[in-house]
Amino acid sequence: MVRNKPTLHDVAKRAGVSIATVSNVLNYKSTELSDKTKEKVLGAIDDLNYEPNQFARSLKTGQSNMIAFIVPDQNPFFTELLTEISDECQKHQLHVAVVSSEENEDKQKALIESFIAQNVSAIILVPVNSKFKLKKEWLNTPIMTLDRELESMQLSSITVNNEEAAYTATQRLISSKSTDIGLLLANPNISTTTERRQGYARALSDNHIEVNHNLIFYSDQQLGTDAQIKSGYEATKTLIGENIKAIVATNHLLLLGALQAIKEGGKVITKDVIIVGFDDSYWNEIYAPKLTVVSQPVKTMGKEAGKMIYRMIRGEKNESIKLSTKLVIRESCEFR
Amino acid sequence: MVRNKPTLHDVAKRAGVSIATVSNVLNYKSTELSDKTKEKVLGAIDDLNYEPNQFARSLKTGQSNMIAFIVPDQNPFFTELLTEISDECQKHQLHVAVVSSEENEDKQKALIESFIAQNVSAIILVPVNSKFKLKKEWLNTPIMTLDRELESMQLSSITVNNEEAAYTATQRLISSKSTDIGLLLANPNISTTTERRQGYARALSDNHIEVNHNLIFYSDQQLGTDAQIKSGYEATKTLIGENIKAIVATNHLLLLGALQAIKEGGKVITKDVIIVGFDDSYWNEIYAPKLTVVSQPVKTMGKEAGKMIYRMIRGEKNESIKLSTKLVIRESCEFR
Repeated sequence: MVRNKPTLHDVAKRAGVSIATVSNVLNYKSTELSDKTKEKVLGAIDDLNYEPNQFARSLKTGQSNMIAFIVPDQNPFFTELLTEISDECQKHQLHVAVVSSEENEDKQKALIESFIAQNVSAIILVPVNSKFKLKKEWLNTPIMTLDRELESMQLSSITVNNEEAAYTATQRLISSKSTDIGLLLANPNISTTTERRQGYARALSDNHIEVNHNLIFYSDQQLGTDAQIKSGYEATKTLIGENIKAIVATNHLLLLGALQAIKEGGKVITKDVIIVGFDDSYWNEIYAPKLTVVSQPVKTMGKEAGKMIYRMIRGEKNESIKLSTKLVIRESCEFR
Repeated sequence: MVRNKPTLHDVAKRAGVSIATVSNVLNYKSTELSDKTKEKVLGAIDDLNYEPNQFARSLKTGQSNMIAFIVPDQNPFFTELLTEISDECQKHQLHVAVVSSEENEDKQKALIESFIAQNVSAIILVPVNSKFKLKKEWLNTPIMTLDRELESMQLSSITVNNEEAAYTATQRLISSKSTDIGLLLANPNISTTTERRQGYARALSDNHIEVNHNLIFYSDQQLGTDAQIKSGYEATKTLIGENIKAIVATNHLLLLGALQAIKEGGKVITKDVIIVGFDDSYWNEIYAPKLTVVSQPVKTMGKEAGKMIYRMIRGEKNESIKLSTKLVIRESCEFR
């Protein structure tokens, strides 16, 4: 298929006028134009089947009706957020396009620059690490962060209370008479990881248990989805090899890896080991035993992100939001 | 945050030239321009912090470096496809933005029009139904379909052999001495559903079993992800209530609903009922019993889609591709 889409230049050439004139006609700034000129331009648009389009709207307003949502990986958590953000933004005729930075800072930078260059209305960013610095000129476009925060910037954000979430999860395992508790964490350079580690440490401290750094495992998210599952798997294999009987897995992918290692190791959850995961999914309910997890308020997060970014686009006042999580207690967190 | 992004107009106004002149400078068509004019324009660009951008590139080439991927829902299958397409397209400095039509034809139409108006390089579409008609003028932008096909259009597409996939799944259950086989299908108006129903019917016919329409259940995908799971759940509840002992669930969400109904009904897979699902996931491997599914070649599909759309953008010759699926035999498809 040969591509032959007419451009503003083609229209101008055919009408025998400047592209500024074409632009004026498209933007209804036609007061100084003669009817004859207008007719020539509209005729050329018709002849070439040129669509008076978003592009023309961009010329006028400097923005498109598209919001970019930059996520770090293919965790189902982000797909659920997308659905809610889209629902909310649709009320204002805004479309949401999602792209993955694959936990790669260079790719994240290229995506931001490309979207800004295309005049997106706004950007919702889940940053690949908390130290990432935004260029000053990017801030001409409204940018907020979601789920994760940036250290150096005072950007509007929607996050959950990760410290409290990990505290509650750890406390639940301590209540089940565990003192040696394994902790599976994601990349150390993201804000959610730091906060979850702090919550785990506070729960231990409140119960006069010393933190044993040999029980804390990190994964390198830059290596992708499969590598994260494998990381949860390897860490759990080590933990059950050392006869650790309680584990907190701080995301969906780490939990998957942990379950695989427990199964392969011939261990039975609720008999040999207990576990609390993060992020709710239908599988948690139908797995045997049913899985106890920290459930993040993903619907509220997405909805509020949609509302926040719309306020930012309109230049309205805005405050960051921190939401609470909920421990959904099923069967996997207690010995039977 | 008040938004105040400079436009081409602002630059032209500040430099005291037409926007055509600004455009010429940005596009390096500066031969007829005096150095003084060039300097005025570049000075204005600098003063206003205007980015010579994608937008300018669009003026020149009529296209952006963005590919739109329009998916129908939040099935993890589409997220996996996105990862592969993005990887492939990145080789050519093309970014992929994904949006969901939520199985809604009007929304799908609005998204296509919005993307074309923004001069995307191309569109990869998973159509909400096989009867959807594309407007003639849309075809100035390269458009291909993925996973599902359109009846009326000869668009390039990448699909799998769904008829054969459902045939093999059904045949496997017949080999396990089943004759009454329940079939859980998605929306009747999409090509994959039609083909899967045909494969099921052919397997029965080859084994001299008559099709019993009471054993075939459809779901309404327009109602969303939760509704599809519920649909698989309700259908399976009915099937096991009628003592049906073999089920084919033709997507991930329907399988989830079926597993839930089997569990709640107090039935045990491999003892009371056997099942074959569609779409592989880590959960299939760690579920007890391990789940037999039709695995779609999602990595190849995504990779080939990336290559195909790039050929289309360059106006090269292109042929539709139909890929084979694989039955991954685990434990759930046989009585023990």
